[in-house]
Amino acid sequence: MKTYTQRLLTSPWDDLINPVILIVEDNDEDFYTFMRITQSIDPLKRTHYNFLRFEDGDEALDYLYRKGDYQELDAPLPVAILLDLNLPGTDGRDIIKMVKQTPQLKIIPIVVLSTSNNLNDIKSCYQHGANCYMLKPMGLPDMQKTIQTLFQQWFQFAILPSYGQFAS
Amino acid sequence: MKTYTQRLLTSPWDDLINPVILIVEDNDEDFYTFMRITQSIDPLKRTHYNFLRFEDGDEALDYLYRKGDYQELDAPLPVAILLDLNLPGTDGRDIIKMVKQTPQLKIIPIVVLSTSNNLNDIKSCYQHGANCYMLKPMGLPDMQKTIQTLFQQWFQFAILPSYGQFAS
Repeated sequence: MKTYTQRLLTSPWDDLINPVILIVEDNDEDFYTFMRITQSIDPLKRTHYNFLRFEDGDEALDYLYRKGDYQELDAPLPVAILLDLNLPGTDGRDIIKMVKQTPQLKIIPIVVLSTSNNLNDIKSCYQHGANCYMLKPMGLPDMQKTIQTLFQQWFQFAILPSYGQFAS
Repeated sequence: MKTYTQRLLTSPWDDLINPVILIVEDNDEDFYTFMRITQSIDPLKRTHYNFLRFEDGDEALDYLYRKGDYQELDAPLPVAILLDLNLPGTDGRDIIKMVKQTPQLKIIPIVVLSTSNNLNDIKSCYQHGANCYMLKPMGLPDMQKTIQTLFQQWFQFAILPSYGQFAS
């Protein structure tokens, strides 16, 4: 991650060609499953996105708000955020509230991917401005379908707000 | 439409079993294309949603805010809104602003489906709280892929905020 961050710091323009999707996920297995599934999607239909992962809510916020290690970061903001809810440091629920109350960040779509099917979580995430809530299913086949659908919808078909920034 | 509205008025509980997706679309051809495509989705995977269509922004707002013809309506709110932007009556852009500033309505996901690839439209919709922006593509094959992806993501995989209301 450090290496990637250093690359971000030294060659920010790379992110104009390969925009960043921020993934905030503390569970290694979930993250690598996600990456394996997205890599298995038909290469011809693959997007050109870079995935930047943080395991800790506080570090994700530092990156988004360009604080701490990211003060000097000159790269564009991520084009979307995939967010787990239960995180070390600042919780995913609080990240949604903060991001969606910040004028220059609220435009970034937040897709929640969580194991929580707690009704209060679901309602509260939408109430605070999460763009979409998806349940991490049990078992690889269902996980595969969920990730494929999420990926197709958000990174192949939906028009993200950063569209203009990256449109040729 | 009138018949459907009357049924809504007289048997509101039907909507607990078959929750309503509100479609605000003035173009008949686009609406019927949408319906044909959703009906062609594998029947086993089809959802149990009812589609309620309005062609006019003002009437959609009356329905959402339970005004005018809908004052007596006792049925639950729709679980999602598919929204065209250029509409007779109140414009789609203004519907987003109004709905997302109303505490009891802002939780309802709004998916914009528009022919406009105007950057200001895209950014402004996200800025005002639209959950997702999709472009109506030209030509049936692309339209089919777009609608299928939208439908799968939002009505088969995503957990809508009304989940609890309808979960068994």
